[in-house]
Amino acid sequence: MTGLAKTMNAMGAAAKEAARAMGAATASAKNAALENAAKNIDARRSDILRVNRDEVENAKAADKTGAFVDRMALDDARIDGVCKALRDIVKLDDPIGKPLRNWTQPNGLSFERIAVPIGVVAVIYESRPNVTVDAAAIALKAGNAVILRGGSECIGTNSALHACLRDGCVAAGLPETAAQFVVTTDRAAVGALLGGLNGAVDLVIPRGGKSLVARVQSDARAPVLSHLDGVCHVYVDREANPEKAVAIAVNSKMRRTGICGAAETLLIDKAAIDRLWPPIANALKESGCELRVDDHIRAIDSDAKAASEEDFYTEYLDAVISVAAVDGAAGAAAHIAKYGSGHTDAIVTENDETARAFIAAVDSAIVLHNASTQFADGGEFGLGAEIGIATGRLHARGPVGVEELTTYKNVVRGAGQIRP
Amino acid sequence: MTGLAKTMNAMGAAAKEAARAMGAATASAKNAALENAAKNIDARRSDILRVNRDEVENAKAADKTGAFVDRMALDDARIDGVCKALRDIVKLDDPIGKPLRNWTQPNGLSFERIAVPIGVVAVIYESRPNVTVDAAAIALKAGNAVILRGGSECIGTNSALHACLRDGCVAAGLPETAAQFVVTTDRAAVGALLGGLNGAVDLVIPRGGKSLVARVQSDARAPVLSHLDGVCHVYVDREANPEKAVAIAVNSKMRRTGICGAAETLLIDKAAIDRLWPPIANALKESGCELRVDDHIRAIDSDAKAASEEDFYTEYLDAVISVAAVDGAAGAAAHIAKYGSGHTDAIVTENDETARAFIAAVDSAIVLHNASTQFADGGEFGLGAEIGIATGRLHARGPVGVEELTTYKNVVRGAGQIRP
Repeated sequence: MTGLAKTMNAMGAAAKEAARAMGAATASAKNAALENAAKNIDARRSDILRVNRDEVENAKAADKTGAFVDRMALDDARIDGVCKALRDIVKLDDPIGKPLRNWTQPNGLSFERIAVPIGVVAVIYESRPNVTVDAAAIALKAGNAVILRGGSECIGTNSALHACLRDGCVAAGLPETAAQFVVTTDRAAVGALLGGLNGAVDLVIPRGGKSLVARVQSDARAPVLSHLDGVCHVYVDREANPEKAVAIAVNSKMRRTGICGAAETLLIDKAAIDRLWPPIANALKESGCELRVDDHIRAIDSDAKAASEEDFYTEYLDAVISVAAVDGAAGAAAHIAKYGSGHTDAIVTENDETARAFIAAVDSAIVLHNASTQFADGGEFGLGAEIGIATGRLHARGPVGVEELTTYKNVVRGAGQIRP
Repeated sequence: MTGLAKTMNAMGAAAKEAARAMGAATASAKNAALENAAKNIDARRSDILRVNRDEVENAKAADKTGAFVDRMALDDARIDGVCKALRDIVKLDDPIGKPLRNWTQPNGLSFERIAVPIGVVAVIYESRPNVTVDAAAIALKAGNAVILRGGSECIGTNSALHACLRDGCVAAGLPETAAQFVVTTDRAAVGALLGGLNGAVDLVIPRGGKSLVARVQSDARAPVLSHLDGVCHVYVDREANPEKAVAIAVNSKMRRTGICGAAETLLIDKAAIDRLWPPIANALKESGCELRVDDHIRAIDSDAKAASEEDFYTEYLDAVISVAAVDGAAGAAAHIAKYGSGHTDAIVTENDETARAFIAAVDSAIVLHNASTQFADGGEFGLGAEIGIATGRLHARGPVGVEELTTYKNVVRGAGQIRP
């Protein structure tokens, strides 16, 4: 075994040990740890910003893109945001020990499902330093131990932030290894985490670009909560209110084009396309969006650029939208089943029966009626904070917040019953 | 791609297609399919028994063990049992479309989590023909499509049973491919299923011996619900009622020694070992159980056979039990954390505070207070039927029944809201 593998396995063993203590930790101890972390970040602000400034300079010197540098850069406002996020998580209900369900059997046995932490959560992310704090805080609040592995360009910033969390845990009487940070830039560390650290890792969460997520999905030995693509759709039905349709289409696409809940494809009911297309097309164009349309729409709008088959599979994450005409809600659902990614899809209609049919037929993590796809976010759901959005089919679907980082155990209480 | 790989992928694609129809199927259609299947099995009883008789003869000729032959053999009573199991599943509530939770946000958006099927479930099992029917029925009731792969010795029996299910689905207007059966004995078919059939398989469930489960856990690309070991413990506390302790220890171990919920280790509180050990030891010996004890117990019972370290990791599935003396409930929990398999563990005590501490500290799928570990069973839980017991940490822990084969989607209803 290499030195790195040994180090990583020791980290896993320490996390597993810490997870036992975290599972038994009181809500007030966990909240104190997060509050301490916020105070530490505030108190060490100038050091953190200095380290970050150096790393930003290095990234610029290494010709990283402006977007990359922006994601990694901290300033006072961002530090304030990180501290506020911690305090928002403190305010959330503690999920652990909550009875989720209970029932009895005729033999007198009583059954209860109780929320417990998942155990050890590994978070593998790229260059955003706020993920260090957000992800750790959500995992710790749910009573988990967490192992963090961030992008190498930010290792100093992330180490400094992690130290604030670690010291916050210790000051609250929680294990020093409740939140651990992988300091090596050796990429084999990611492989070790994906290998599960000798069975210590219970869940892997990737945060970052598509290649990172794809690697984690393909290589992780432990369960993964993640989404690879967000090919989100807005379907405008013949019975849509035109103002709502315009507002929802524009907001879903253009409010922020780079987030996973941004719409990538607009579907319009063939039965009302003459009436619905012009106002929506104009509004999207005025907002600066490029339109790529199918043959059906080009027949009524010959100026529009043609969409290729590939366009309908594409997550642009940019001011571009593909548009197809479909046969009602059923046609929209069929298009989504073929091209969608199971992330977030919306219908705009005033007909509740049509909405019901669409909601039943579209099997995505999030399905909206008369609302923007950009609400696909844990904060907007009221979860308080999210560690990501999951499009897998097991455990959690949609925003993954504190409660989604818990599982349950079955507690059975008797009076000496034996099985006949 | 080999011919087999093509065939298997086509099976996956057909299952995925069927899963869409199953997700939209009414409760009455699904129940009719299961009722039809029961009628078909009853009507084709003599054919099924004839095929099974031939396969049993072949297995005997191939020198299969008596236990193996017993597991694969059908008779009228077992056929009746299979039909009754189907009708019991018909009686269960339909889980699909059930609102699991709902809430609203200040902006007027309303949120609902609705139960939906998981999708395509692959069940890989060995020689018990009843698994063909039970597993398929539970999966179908939950709105899933299912792909079944049973042991090669029973392929004729299982094909005949599968045909009853398939015809039952078709007669109820459900897809012919809602339940599919892998007829080839080529072992590469298992590899293909574990590979996920080009992304079609959403969940894999192994049913059978340890080597099958280990292979599935190590090779499956899709999530797995399973348990590898059932090293279950009974801890007898100083404040145990002695009669309950004796009854629970004997029942947990000896009612049926071959099931995963059978106790394998008895833990006894050092503080009361002189008083508790003799009656429990006598009762276990009288029931025909071999005892393997630690040094602490040998000090008071020098006739007893010594347990090795390995014994405490061992799932005997036989009339043998390992015994250790521990320091109270905390000592028991520490022993279970080290040697246990996270399956099922029990405490016997009249002290509710001690029980609470044990339940909090033991992180197994099932934790019992004053009841036999042999209640670790979906039927005993009142789930109606189980497809197995899961000891993983995500999605479902403990008995996996109809509800545990569902997941959820998030439905968001608005009145035209856009995100600011």
